[in-house]
Amino acid sequence: MIKFTYKTKVYYKDVDQMGVVYYNRYYEYFEAARTELLQSMSIDVTSIENEGYFLPVITSHCDYKVGANFEDILLVNTMINKPPKATMRIDYEIYRSSNNELLVTGYTIHAFTDQSGKAVKPPKGLVHILKSNIQSIGSD
Amino acid sequence: MIKFTYKTKVYYKDVDQMGVVYYNRYYEYFEAARTELLQSMSIDVTSIENEGYFLPVITSHCDYKVGANFEDILLVNTMINKPPKATMRIDYEIYRSSNNELLVTGYTIHAFTDQSGKAVKPPKGLVHILKSNIQSIGSD
Amino acid sequence: MIKFTYKTKVYYKDVDQMGVVYYNRYYEYFEAARTELLQSMSIDVTSIENEGYFLPVITSHCDYKVGANFEDILLVNTMINKPPKATMRIDYEIYRSSNNELLVTGYTIHAFTDQSGKAVKPPKGLVHILKSNIQSIGSD
Amino acid sequence: MIKFTYKTKVYYKDVDQMGVVYYNRYYEYFEAARTELLQSMSIDVTSIENEGYFLPVITSHCDYKVGANFEDILLVNTMINKPPKATMRIDYEIYRSSNNELLVTGYTIHAFTDQSGKAVKPPKGLVHILKSNIQSIGSD
Repeated sequence: MIKFTYKTKVYYKDVDQMGVVYYNRYYEYFEAARTELLQSMSIDVTSIENEGYFLPVITSHCDYKVGANFEDILLVNTMINKPPKATMRIDYEIYRSSNNELLVTGYTIHAFTDQSGKAVKPPKGLVHILKSNIQSIGSD
Repeated sequence: MIKFTYKTKVYYKDVDQMGVVYYNRYYEYFEAARTELLQSMSIDVTSIENEGYFLPVITSHCDYKVGANFEDILLVNTMINKPPKATMRIDYEIYRSSNNELLVTGYTIHAFTDQSGKAVKPPKGLVHILKSNIQSIGSD
Repeated sequence: MIKFTYKTKVYYKDVDQMGVVYYNRYYEYFEAARTELLQSMSIDVTSIENEGYFLPVITSHCDYKVGANFEDILLVNTMINKPPKATMRIDYEIYRSSNNELLVTGYTIHAFTDQSGKAVKPPKGLVHILKSNIQSIGSD
Repeated sequence: MIKFTYKTKVYYKDVDQMGVVYYNRYYEYFEAARTELLQSMSIDVTSIENEGYFLPVITSHCDYKVGANFEDILLVNTMINKPPKATMRIDYEIYRSSNNELLVTGYTIHAFTDQSGKAVKPPKGLVHILKSNIQSIGSD
């Protein structure tokens, strides 16, 4: 399993009139988190796109347990369990840093397409790096 | 089944550099659509909240088939199949108006809480109106 | 003067924990309003862009008087006073529909560029339509 | 002058179909930046609000020179030149980190209100801290 923790903070822009983060904003945290997970393995999405590959989300899912509040520091655990085949799944857990409370869990599933939106095989370089990182961390 | 169609339009604010609506923005269309579905039955969320009831989302899910583009007119079919018990599920389908193409499907599940976030029974008035509307449309 | 009124509604996505619309969201209403102003003159931005013209915002400004609330209906008066030259200015006033209260005023200034971002003259068709509409409404 | 530099990064959520950050998103960077400027002086906005003070934006302004792109690192210089009186002005400059290019400049003006939205004098603690920090950095 590849695991990366992305740290972010809740600002006014994210919080609704119930005083908690609006439900679709967690998907923005997920996006930043997976971008940084890839970056942690020296993969930047811009380079992938410049090579003609796109990773559109085909499924998104989130379960909300406790709402995050303004000025909370959030830790977004971001995990890839299997190398990509036709699709790639990324899992997320968001914790409130101050008390280690689990706030939300979720996942996104990504396809691989060319610029025209046609499904293609995942880029070999990406598969190679992900496989290496999944194996190097052991048998989970 | 209660069914309502909410119409909206895609603006620049919603579209990413792939030229399609960013994946979390569909959840904003879902929110507007369910607010208008309730409004179509003379229920406004502000009044529900003024009575001390809140309907936080506890699960959100979306499957993306085709991306919506800038200036597309979208039709958001919004459906409630069962009266709420401890939770309420709302289903959505988004079509591109110009060619009736199905773009995304999804659902949200809502809890009922008081202002402090404690789970409560759904407000009787809401349950009554939803039950009446589900029954009045027949056996589906 | 060209004047168009765009109608929109405030949803949860727009409202912050003070219970009023978050300050940058009014700029999204401005964008929708100017898109519909152009549409009211049979100009769609997609066609302008397909001809190779872009209208990036070079200045945005907003003065906030009273906050808009959840489920408010908003009327966005959108005005063009002069035909575009090197730039085009659009003015906005947002009223709460229920009580005709003026909530915010603002403006955006747009440049004309080609796809590479280089400044170009405004598209002749657009200038023609705007001039015609400004004149046809008389001496203001 | 108080000056603080907030560092952030551009993600997909912020970028429009021109490939640059959507014009109202810079105001979200401004908000995060001023929250961190205050934090750098041990002021958190949550505490100010818990004491009954709110700092709503009454004017926002932004001039756009060059667009920020996906995965750009941005440096948001955030400046307070004068202690607050009835209002407080904060200035911003956003640079692209990779080439020190100035992308946007802007400012926000804030009022001080109580929870009901009524104008009040700025909280003494905040004024004291801001005055001390403005003076301690010398004659600019």
